[in-house]
Amino acid sequence: MSLDETWFSEPCNAGGSAISFKIKKKLHEEQSEYQKLEVFETEKFGRLMVIDGFIMLTQRDNFLYHEMMSHPCLFTHPNPEKVLIIGGGDCGTAKEVLKHDSVKVLHQVEIDERVTRIAEVYFPELCESNSDPRAEFHFVDGIKWVEDAESGFYDVIIIDSTDPIGPAEGLFSLPFYQQCFKALGRNGILVQQSESPLIHMSILKNMHHDMRGAGFIDSATLFFPQSCYPTGWWSATMCCKDNTLSDFREQDADSKSFDTQYYNAKVHQAALCAPEFFYKALAL
Amino acid sequence: MSLDETWFSEPCNAGGSAISFKIKKKLHEEQSEYQKLEVFETEKFGRLMVIDGFIMLTQRDNFLYHEMMSHPCLFTHPNPEKVLIIGGGDCGTAKEVLKHDSVKVLHQVEIDERVTRIAEVYFPELCESNSDPRAEFHFVDGIKWVEDAESGFYDVIIIDSTDPIGPAEGLFSLPFYQQCFKALGRNGILVQQSESPLIHMSILKNMHHDMRGAGFIDSATLFFPQSCYPTGWWSATMCCKDNTLSDFREQDADSKSFDTQYYNAKVHQAALCAPEFFYKALAL
Repeated sequence: MSLDETWFSEPCNAGGSAISFKIKKKLHEEQSEYQKLEVFETEKFGRLMVIDGFIMLTQRDNFLYHEMMSHPCLFTHPNPEKVLIIGGGDCGTAKEVLKHDSVKVLHQVEIDERVTRIAEVYFPELCESNSDPRAEFHFVDGIKWVEDAESGFYDVIIIDSTDPIGPAEGLFSLPFYQQCFKALGRNGILVQQSESPLIHMSILKNMHHDMRGAGFIDSATLFFPQSCYPTGWWSATMCCKDNTLSDFREQDADSKSFDTQYYNAKVHQAALCAPEFFYKALAL
Repeated sequence: MSLDETWFSEPCNAGGSAISFKIKKKLHEEQSEYQKLEVFETEKFGRLMVIDGFIMLTQRDNFLYHEMMSHPCLFTHPNPEKVLIIGGGDCGTAKEVLKHDSVKVLHQVEIDERVTRIAEVYFPELCESNSDPRAEFHFVDGIKWVEDAESGFYDVIIIDSTDPIGPAEGLFSLPFYQQCFKALGRNGILVQQSESPLIHMSILKNMHHDMRGAGFIDSATLFFPQSCYPTGWWSATMCCKDNTLSDFREQDADSKSFDTQYYNAKVHQAALCAPEFFYKALAL
């Protein structure tokens, strides 16, 4: 059967596949300075944010991505106090980061202020920590921000961006990782969303290669489900300046003081376990 | 955008979502005694089998499901010699089971012989072990087969069926689990595909409840990605007559004599780690 205009569909060229949500109505549409932003009310996945035709998040399943972009890296760093989010305009990752009491400073640097303004209106539950005094929101270019950052200032950098085409392309590159390396202090950790293990292995391979090339001594991919992204299977890749990524503060994760829907200490350990084909591909 | 007739789309009512594959051409269509069977050539996922409008498998991603339906239960049983597959007509699970040298007898009981005949033609790579002398293929009703089985005969029963509507409904029920319990010997293990953790929690809850109700002393869900099924996130639920499911033959899995694409000892351990919402839902 075909899907008519009562569905929002995102075809994925790399997969020859598509993910669709049944729509009740379109709530918002605008062309910002950078991209086309749309918000839909879906039938069963709550609200849906779309940027340039690509699904960004739904209310029903964004917890998977946001929790996995934040808690594994924060529970790996021994004492994360200063955190930088590049992108992340919907504020879902920021909300999770701010659940950590150790965090004293959060800088979120999103190039398109409209994404955050729209999130505040249509996804208020993701923005409920935006007035936290530890958080600063800057609407400027993330690459420039990292270049200008004080050397060794940050403990954790989270790159919560769109795909490596369009505005986010420069965030998937060796020169950018080198700048991040410089901006991170001792025990510093970088994490970046790294696409689908099933159809984007070349992106994942390049990312590991470039992260190591930038001086990070370990890199590791976290695997997790994400229904609204192509193939429904997603990943985030971490790298660190010291220690190894297989060690994390497991006891702290196990006794965490806040609620999550997906993440726990066992899920953290599990997310680090790579499929056979991944080991083989990275060894090539 | 809408998706036209050059796509095969499966809308999922429970999710208000749909998964689609771009189609090159339809290779086969027939109405068997039980159901409508179709095979398509997709653009990027190889061939696609569809039963009654529901996606069964693609050549590109079926390894995820077939490996997770077979290796975890077989590496949990101390010495699986006699295995029964209910359903599994595409033979992909059978192929994985037959990789285990311990297996001496495999009975596959699929109600619709046409599924297997079509798999032999269009998915020959899944059927390459069908002439293994340890394997017997019976095209009869699985529920009746289990009722008639010799008490304690099987070591492992794998229920590789379609969704719990239509022909497979009776396979998701307490009376059926009771019959399986009887047909399993000491250390016996049952595993059943158990739908999407994101949208089918009520099925998963009932399954655990009914498995325990049938006398199994432990039950545990395996979580894994499966791109071509609703939400892209799938599960299989195991239960056992003795011991616990968290213990498995980890060393044997780690030194397995055969190739896999997804499964390994770490992936096995990882698949058993449940998300927070799952623990909370099952505790209700």
